[in-house]
Amino acid sequence: MNLSNPILKYTLEMADHSMILGQRLSEWCGHGPVLEQDIALTNMALDLIGEARYLYQYASELTDGVYDEDHFPFKRVERQFFNLLLVERPNGHWGDTLMRQLMYDCYHYFHLQALRKSSNIRFAEIAEKTLKEATYHLRYSSEWVIRLGDGTEESHQKMQQSLEDLYPYFEEAFLPSQAHLALVEEGMAPHPDEYGDAAREKFKNIIADAGLVFPKLDVFQSGGKEGKHSEHLGHMLAVMQYYPRTYADAKW
Amino acid sequence: MNLSNPILKYTLEMADHSMILGQRLSEWCGHGPVLEQDIALTNMALDLIGEARYLYQYASELTDGVYDEDHFPFKRVERQFFNLLLVERPNGHWGDTLMRQLMYDCYHYFHLQALRKSSNIRFAEIAEKTLKEATYHLRYSSEWVIRLGDGTEESHQKMQQSLEDLYPYFEEAFLPSQAHLALVEEGMAPHPDEYGDAAREKFKNIIADAGLVFPKLDVFQSGGKEGKHSEHLGHMLAVMQYYPRTYADAKW
Repeated sequence: MNLSNPILKYTLEMADHSMILGQRLSEWCGHGPVLEQDIALTNMALDLIGEARYLYQYASELTDGVYDEDHFPFKRVERQFFNLLLVERPNGHWGDTLMRQLMYDCYHYFHLQALRKSSNIRFAEIAEKTLKEATYHLRYSSEWVIRLGDGTEESHQKMQQSLEDLYPYFEEAFLPSQAHLALVEEGMAPHPDEYGDAAREKFKNIIADAGLVFPKLDVFQSGGKEGKHSEHLGHMLAVMQYYPRTYADAKW
Repeated sequence: MNLSNPILKYTLEMADHSMILGQRLSEWCGHGPVLEQDIALTNMALDLIGEARYLYQYASELTDGVYDEDHFPFKRVERQFFNLLLVERPNGHWGDTLMRQLMYDCYHYFHLQALRKSSNIRFAEIAEKTLKEATYHLRYSSEWVIRLGDGTEESHQKMQQSLEDLYPYFEEAFLPSQAHLALVEEGMAPHPDEYGDAAREKFKNIIADAGLVFPKLDVFQSGGKEGKHSEHLGHMLAVMQYYPRTYADAKW
């Protein structure tokens, strides 16, 4: 796999963000606090995995079909995943999951909006197709973070804790990889400034509406885009890849 | 694999009990409450996996080497594991882990003691070799259950809850499988009455010393020995089998 091709690398970054978050959200299936929210989260998981699939299909084409779309989620090992550390954070409680979701949605929505103008037609198409879902996700997670942050004393405290726990993982989305920067020059990917400020602003506003206080923080976690992950990703992959690795030749 | 051979089936039952509990205990490695206990639990995990290994080696011989010892823990799927449901219960908190351990140790110790008289020389040898470790395990878990049950108000309540949560899984160890009964007739395996009463008596005494109250219970969980497992085993196997399935041809 020629990862020195920045298009392939950037495609995998985007695909892995959404794939791993989709896998995380799918862990809620059957465990949501009420049926409606259980289904909502499962639908969001499907949206994200659907987006990842478009991107993995494109990645497969970029390897001239040497690797099929299933190879990317199911046969790569941990160090070959380029997702944000944010999306591999454990689900925690409902509020943790929604705080993580809001952070991702702020990045995701504004990034897709900018990516629609990509000179790479496939990126532009996928962004166009996915933006509607990302819009809905952002509305959903915003409403929940406000409801819980501005809720009871207990829910407020829990959300404040979620914010403090997860905030160190927010900024990685706006740290471009080498591949990303190479594509910025070619007009294929938006510069982080193009979507980062809007994403940060949106996040700040929701946090303010939720009555939460921003943690003071100068240092952020990163490394995911270079394949350096927390202990959580390995366990996720063990579960996610169990069937394809166990029944290697199974056809669906 | 000829599971209609009761010797093979019973060997795998015993091996799987200890293997899966060993895998569970190993999850504590690096997470114990203090270093000494962390190491103690990790040592017990190694003891149990060591015992499982003797048994898997014997199982391999029983298949005339068609399956090697690694096949059994690493290449079978969930329904082919015959371990007690007890040992796949999640670790929970420290007290949960020690309550589960005490239940297993009561069975394990008295079962091995009886198995030493097996007419099957391999069984007798493995039981002889393993009994010393099982003796230590039983002493360790007994001490902890008494210390916590007879400790503070909070630790007492937690241990009472652990007992109530896990007690439904205690009796499966004394429900013989068909294979087990077949071997009883041949003098190769002890009848459950031979070790069950002593194990129950020991357990009852420790629970009494810990100041805990037995839950009223008529119905017990079972099915593990027939390969019918809770949702937990699949996740354990995903993690346990990840490396051998991912690097299928790796040599150590």
